[in-house]
Amino acid sequence: MSADENAKKWLVEFDAALQSKDIDKAVGMFHAESYWRDLVSFTWNLKTAEGQAQIRDMLQATLEKTRPSHWLLEGNATETDGITEAWFTFETLVSRGKGLLRLRDGKAWTLLTTMVELKGFEEAKGESRPKGVEHGSYKGRKTWKESRDDEAQTLGYTKQPYVVIVGGGQAGIILGARLRKLGVPAIIIEKNARAGDSWRNRYKSLCLHDPVWYDHLPYMPFPDDWPVFAPKDKLGDWLETYTKVMELNYWNSTSCKKASYNETRREWEVTVEREGREVTLRPKELVIALGVSGYPNVPTIEGADSFEGDQFHSSKFPGAENYRGKKAVVLGSNNSAHDICAALWEEDVDVTMIQRSSTHIAPSESLMELALGGLYSEQALKSGIDHHKADLIFASVPYKIMHGFHIPVYEEMKKRDADLYSRLEQAGFMLDFGVDGSGLFMKYLRRGSGYYIDVGASELVADGRVKLKSGVNIVKINSKSVVLSDGTELEADLIIYATGYGSMNQWLADLISPEVADKLGKVWGLGSDTPKDPGPWEGELRNMWKPTQVPHLWVQGGNLHQNRHYSQFMGLQLKARYEGLETPVYELAAAHHES
Amino acid sequence: MSADENAKKWLVEFDAALQSKDIDKAVGMFHAESYWRDLVSFTWNLKTAEGQAQIRDMLQATLEKTRPSHWLLEGNATETDGITEAWFTFETLVSRGKGLLRLRDGKAWTLLTTMVELKGFEEAKGESRPKGVEHGSYKGRKTWKESRDDEAQTLGYTKQPYVVIVGGGQAGIILGARLRKLGVPAIIIEKNARAGDSWRNRYKSLCLHDPVWYDHLPYMPFPDDWPVFAPKDKLGDWLETYTKVMELNYWNSTSCKKASYNETRREWEVTVEREGREVTLRPKELVIALGVSGYPNVPTIEGADSFEGDQFHSSKFPGAENYRGKKAVVLGSNNSAHDICAALWEEDVDVTMIQRSSTHIAPSESLMELALGGLYSEQALKSGIDHHKADLIFASVPYKIMHGFHIPVYEEMKKRDADLYSRLEQAGFMLDFGVDGSGLFMKYLRRGSGYYIDVGASELVADGRVKLKSGVNIVKINSKSVVLSDGTELEADLIIYATGYGSMNQWLADLISPEVADKLGKVWGLGSDTPKDPGPWEGELRNMWKPTQVPHLWVQGGNLHQNRHYSQFMGLQLKARYEGLETPVYELAAAHHES
Repeated sequence: MSADENAKKWLVEFDAALQSKDIDKAVGMFHAESYWRDLVSFTWNLKTAEGQAQIRDMLQATLEKTRPSHWLLEGNATETDGITEAWFTFETLVSRGKGLLRLRDGKAWTLLTTMVELKGFEEAKGESRPKGVEHGSYKGRKTWKESRDDEAQTLGYTKQPYVVIVGGGQAGIILGARLRKLGVPAIIIEKNARAGDSWRNRYKSLCLHDPVWYDHLPYMPFPDDWPVFAPKDKLGDWLETYTKVMELNYWNSTSCKKASYNETRREWEVTVEREGREVTLRPKELVIALGVSGYPNVPTIEGADSFEGDQFHSSKFPGAENYRGKKAVVLGSNNSAHDICAALWEEDVDVTMIQRSSTHIAPSESLMELALGGLYSEQALKSGIDHHKADLIFASVPYKIMHGFHIPVYEEMKKRDADLYSRLEQAGFMLDFGVDGSGLFMKYLRRGSGYYIDVGASELVADGRVKLKSGVNIVKINSKSVVLSDGTELEADLIIYATGYGSMNQWLADLISPEVADKLGKVWGLGSDTPKDPGPWEGELRNMWKPTQVPHLWVQGGNLHQNRHYSQFMGLQLKARYEGLETPVYELAAAHHES
Repeated sequence: MSADENAKKWLVEFDAALQSKDIDKAVGMFHAESYWRDLVSFTWNLKTAEGQAQIRDMLQATLEKTRPSHWLLEGNATETDGITEAWFTFETLVSRGKGLLRLRDGKAWTLLTTMVELKGFEEAKGESRPKGVEHGSYKGRKTWKESRDDEAQTLGYTKQPYVVIVGGGQAGIILGARLRKLGVPAIIIEKNARAGDSWRNRYKSLCLHDPVWYDHLPYMPFPDDWPVFAPKDKLGDWLETYTKVMELNYWNSTSCKKASYNETRREWEVTVEREGREVTLRPKELVIALGVSGYPNVPTIEGADSFEGDQFHSSKFPGAENYRGKKAVVLGSNNSAHDICAALWEEDVDVTMIQRSSTHIAPSESLMELALGGLYSEQALKSGIDHHKADLIFASVPYKIMHGFHIPVYEEMKKRDADLYSRLEQAGFMLDFGVDGSGLFMKYLRRGSGYYIDVGASELVADGRVKLKSGVNIVKINSKSVVLSDGTELEADLIIYATGYGSMNQWLADLISPEVADKLGKVWGLGSDTPKDPGPWEGELRNMWKPTQVPHLWVQGGNLHQNRHYSQFMGLQLKARYEGLETPVYELAAAHHES
């Protein structure tokens, strides 16, 4: 049988099994080791069922209400190394979906099902785009501008938004755009003066470490000449532009003071300060989009108060220009530490990096070619994989086995960049590739730290232009120096703490309450039982883009790719609730690891 | 032979004939009645050679320096009604091109050749896009923002732009974007405070009369949910956004006082007032992008000064809101007159339209379906015709025979909208479809006036909600009334002169000199010898997007579609000069019809 025939046969049989509610039959169409990842369509949750037993449980709980049908092959199936890969579309009672299937010997190995749109609540685009003008003549017609101005004046005051998004960085903006397109009234609260300031306010040399093909926002891709690695100010301007084009209700220069859920009124009370005046917003759903980390981590070091130079957390580093000819110590060895060391070196600052523990170094070129190139690159585009398709392929790999896909990439990187790695080690740099050698992206998913995407600073470290002290920590700070755990004393005019961030629950504890923060539990991480990602295994990122143990509280965040893709599902989940559809959540994840 | 074989055979033979400089052979491959339209590739001009003799002349003059080669079929040729249609690519010594060929019985009927890019000066996009960050570490690195700020501060002061564009409406902005992508330093001068104000400042109910698929700007298409007919403020905001994203040097709130060409220094001296201070710009090339019309035409009518109500030219009409319950007279019966009549009626103003001469009415729905649908619509997109392809198909129809393509469209419109037309005539409205029945677009090309794209006002006229007096003019204005040429007196609190605009040469006469304006001659029109388009026949739009009789003076303008497409050729012509390439202009058009 051809790949198409294989795939069609499976889809037809699966459709029939589900239509006749023959769960045994359906489960039998999967391998013993198999994965069904569902994004909202069946579960109103993000959920990976691992193995036949979990698939059975999922179907038993969801089939009756989902009523799936119309499983149809889309385009042509392909076969590589005995795996048939097939795109398909399907429907449920209330939605249309798209999926990706991988078959081995006629049985499913991985199945991805994703919700694309809710029937009757489709986004207006293409043929169904708004007309813009109502042809004919009508008394009392409102122009586009009048309607926009009217909405800006009333929403949040005389009319309540359905959703309030706390945080107007990329996460809040992107989700805001999804909600706007879906017709869900929303307000985004942002403390900075302009959309994009969360990027603009970082150190001046910062550029994105992910390439353009990975970073597109929904609905409005970057132009064809957008740089591979966008400079932070250019990205900031784009976000501001995007916010305007998408017609978001974006409350800039507004601080969020307090939020609490009013059980009687079944709505949140969110107190914000806008234009010098306190406003209480009463949304039904509250989304936290403050980034997945919390307050800056600044270690408590003896004598820090006595330091006569400047000291900043990396997030507050104003730039290297003022330190020309001075001596700097950077504590930390991840992305920000490397970027800041390089920026300081470029301004003729004498700089020493203090590496406390091993770090994964992934050279940008290698990362682009080996890890991302197949999905997010000009080559991928030429082979028909745009970012929409790439996002689904990416999502189709179950987290449980994802490391297996990544290990060979980093094996290759070790060979390819052997020279750099060897020189770094000779310079005393402590390298790792993750506990299981699965490299950067798994570290990102598991713990969100522990790596540097090398865009040049590793050379500085390797050849000593950036000095390195590794396997040590700062134990004491004097007025003009720092003392390391090996007894070394380094003169310093500037100390940078590139020491990461605390948990997002810190924000929540302050904004809502410690109890609610604890009830929510840990945000991010898979439960892989690797460093900084304690178990139990969850199979999805904890609390991200899905219902949480705190009713009506949601978390949006991640990198641009994740925000782009998962905002689709956040949007649909919120839209369904806004329209009063039934949204039975399958296996709401338990909370783990109180803040 | 298949269509592909037909087309390939022709291309191979044509290539061989040109390579061997066998002009007789090449000319013999065209029908006696045939057209070769060249956009820059051969002629460094926009030029349609009509018939074998003109094709021979063109080849004799251009072949030696052009050295064309590599004529290759692109995609599949098609055959319809005995016409083979084929896309192809080709090269010249200095450029790459794309074209469209129509064959009948193996010989060329129409040939379009267009320049796509200059070899060695390709736009950086896709694979060649800028990296955004220079990986590695460099002392004295400039960030994107520093470079942008630096450019904004120096260009026009310590560094001179190569091009100054006078006018920052859609024409100037779009050409500015092309020049930016091509790396040609340019400054755009705009008197309004914000990009897009030339749209924002119009009457509030204004929406585009052309649909979204026809209106995309280069490089950054409208999002998928952009309204079919963009409201003027939304379009204004988009233009402002676009100006920022494209990183244009856009001098807003700047007025252009005077320009003159300094023959000794071989540069323009353009005096502008910016931020209260006079600045002299010294570009090599000057582009006028003020729209193809000049100052508002306001007829001199006896007694106008004695009128006690308000009177405005349509371009200054502030909106209908202040005239509720009042009486208005609108002089004119084209687009603006209709739009303003409808806006007044919607605000309960008693309004009378004065129609002086016949008008072509094209209902918007019919126009979209019958005239534009095949090229610019969701249906066209589905059949693989995006606006890039559509622009070339559009450009491939020689102006000489274009009316023949349009007449059947308007024959169909007459049938389809017979009911409306008949009711309009019963109401006394004088209809026409152009002298030869070729309708709206030919009127637009020939004279730029004489029509209304009906988005609703015609119903108001037909059923008398907007009153109509036709075949008359206003001969006298009293303090509270107007007197018509048939003796009727109409009470009036408001008079709108929807009486069009003078010639663009008026601007030029004031900005540069009457002599230069006369030397340039008439702008726009084909020379069709039809009303308001005096001959001789030119075969291209006079003075638009091509070299003129005034060296180093150019005109950019037209609707969004034309600006999008022809800015490509303006950009390439200016880029070639900027880079010092040889640009021998074939048959520079003579000036006609002094201002």
